[in-house]
Amino acid sequence: MIKTPYLLFLGDAPDPLAAKVAQGIKDWRPENCVGQFRMEGCNADMGLPDMTLTEALEAGAKTLVIGVANRGGVISQAWKKVLVQALEEGLDLASGLHNLLRDEEDLAAVAKACGRELHDVRVPEVDYPIANGKKRSGKRVLAVGTDCSVGKMYTALALDKAMREKGMKSTFRATGQTGILITGDGVPLDAVVADFMAGSVEWLTPDNDDDHWDIIEGQGSLFHVSYSGVTMALVHGGAPDALILSHEPTRAHMRGLPDYELPTLEALRDTALPLARVANPACQVVGVSINTQHMSEDEANAYCAEVEAKLGLPTVDPFRHGADRLAEALAAL
Amino acid sequence: MIKTPYLLFLGDAPDPLAAKVAQGIKDWRPENCVGQFRMEGCNADMGLPDMTLTEALEAGAKTLVIGVANRGGVISQAWKKVLVQALEEGLDLASGLHNLLRDEEDLAAVAKACGRELHDVRVPEVDYPIANGKKRSGKRVLAVGTDCSVGKMYTALALDKAMREKGMKSTFRATGQTGILITGDGVPLDAVVADFMAGSVEWLTPDNDDDHWDIIEGQGSLFHVSYSGVTMALVHGGAPDALILSHEPTRAHMRGLPDYELPTLEALRDTALPLARVANPACQVVGVSINTQHMSEDEANAYCAEVEAKLGLPTVDPFRHGADRLAEALAAL
Repeated sequence: MIKTPYLLFLGDAPDPLAAKVAQGIKDWRPENCVGQFRMEGCNADMGLPDMTLTEALEAGAKTLVIGVANRGGVISQAWKKVLVQALEEGLDLASGLHNLLRDEEDLAAVAKACGRELHDVRVPEVDYPIANGKKRSGKRVLAVGTDCSVGKMYTALALDKAMREKGMKSTFRATGQTGILITGDGVPLDAVVADFMAGSVEWLTPDNDDDHWDIIEGQGSLFHVSYSGVTMALVHGGAPDALILSHEPTRAHMRGLPDYELPTLEALRDTALPLARVANPACQVVGVSINTQHMSEDEANAYCAEVEAKLGLPTVDPFRHGADRLAEALAAL
Repeated sequence: MIKTPYLLFLGDAPDPLAAKVAQGIKDWRPENCVGQFRMEGCNADMGLPDMTLTEALEAGAKTLVIGVANRGGVISQAWKKVLVQALEEGLDLASGLHNLLRDEEDLAAVAKACGRELHDVRVPEVDYPIANGKKRSGKRVLAVGTDCSVGKMYTALALDKAMREKGMKSTFRATGQTGILITGDGVPLDAVVADFMAGSVEWLTPDNDDDHWDIIEGQGSLFHVSYSGVTMALVHGGAPDALILSHEPTRAHMRGLPDYELPTLEALRDTALPLARVANPACQVVGVSINTQHMSEDEANAYCAEVEAKLGLPTVDPFRHGADRLAEALAAL
């Protein structure tokens, strides 16, 4: 568990896209951010107060979160200076970078000497159990996609927000690096050893109040041959009561697989629902989320209306339309 | 890759069942075994020549394979004496034990000093790629089960034997500890990190002659919530041309999951085949293997005939009937 609130490290981000992790934290958990730390040449801005390390500590910051991608997979000396100083002054560090903080000898040594924590959220830090398949109390919803990277995390976070605004009890359960940094907790599922995948998802979504919803962040796709095993572990370990189908209509082929077509939403429904019912016979498909970022407003609305008519399910782009109708569908279940 | 041939270490096996790994090697790859090494109190016997380490080396042995389970998860001092001497005299060691050879300081030190290899087949030793989903040449068959431990490995090994006897080109591709020790090579799939599962199966079953069959050892079950993700990775990474359905008819519930019923063979067919066709649209279900060990001869034959009539597929217990009819079904494909 990463201690909040955060100071967001934007470093020398060449453009806003490089700081998309920081943007995600700022968008979804603004209450977790006391400020931002920018270096010379930084071209990203979260609209948060610029702070020195000392100012951030005075404002209550507990962790410096690296919210920016590094260039060429190297943690530069310019970054190092800030990171070492942050440890020395009293902040933990958290990162989703491919190269790990713990593998940097200087950072590891300073963290140890100062009693600070280094969180590499790509690396599991828990000995997860093997899944036992036992029924848990509380409710769970999972977004499953026709492909990878179609907006499942965005859908889950938007749904969590909409449910909280309605006074429903919900928790976003992160299963990827960005999600873990946003919430400070979760399971880096793609890095878990095969035998323990489903068990890690059970661990992540334990017994809860009967009217509480875990909103489980989806990964991969049952139709994506590289990652379908990870998705399957979410479907069976999560034992969802509700599924949301996620799709990006303009994609020409499965991500990274030029020879694979995307399945239809109907095929996704007919594949995912029977599999989910193995773990939870009461599971229902409750809605559809469409990522319309490459469509005009008119195209997007027409497409959603068409899907809604065909599948008979509330269909929204959570970015354009919000996730209220998906939250209502869950409330009605 | 474990160097063959082997000297099979039976240790102080309290009964034959404790030496089932050795039995598997002896049954399926007798040509890999020069002899057996038994200690005082050993109650297992593979019917191989009893040899000292020196005799085994003279007979050409390259590796001492631990073919017996240890008691209480501890490698005893009595075993250690033999294992250290084996390393010193010139044998590698191979083991599928939960506690690893490499974690025993004395064994690790002697192996290093003597330039010998320690093979812990539960631990992946390759950096597997992420699956790319590309079509490979050659053919592949995979057994999928209604449950775990219904005889998928046995089916695969029996099929491999039947195909070789018919002069077909085939290779058994091990995905579990016992299979890896039997053949000397393979992928310990349940220990592979999630993102690389399907890629490890692609790696295990590369391009081959057009008339060559990889017989991929199955794991878990699409209906077993603890391990279904591993099975999914086999279905998509293996991209099989043919599936064999495996079942154990007397089981009361899914293994380790008292609240879960086994699916029917029809449900298994209707779930596995569409998923397999995502990776290989030409995939067919070609036969059924039934584990009838808890049935009488009459019951077993009646059950197989009934399944054969219902599913319209050759149905055998490979242990009772051999796997010839499954091999013929593949040859006819």
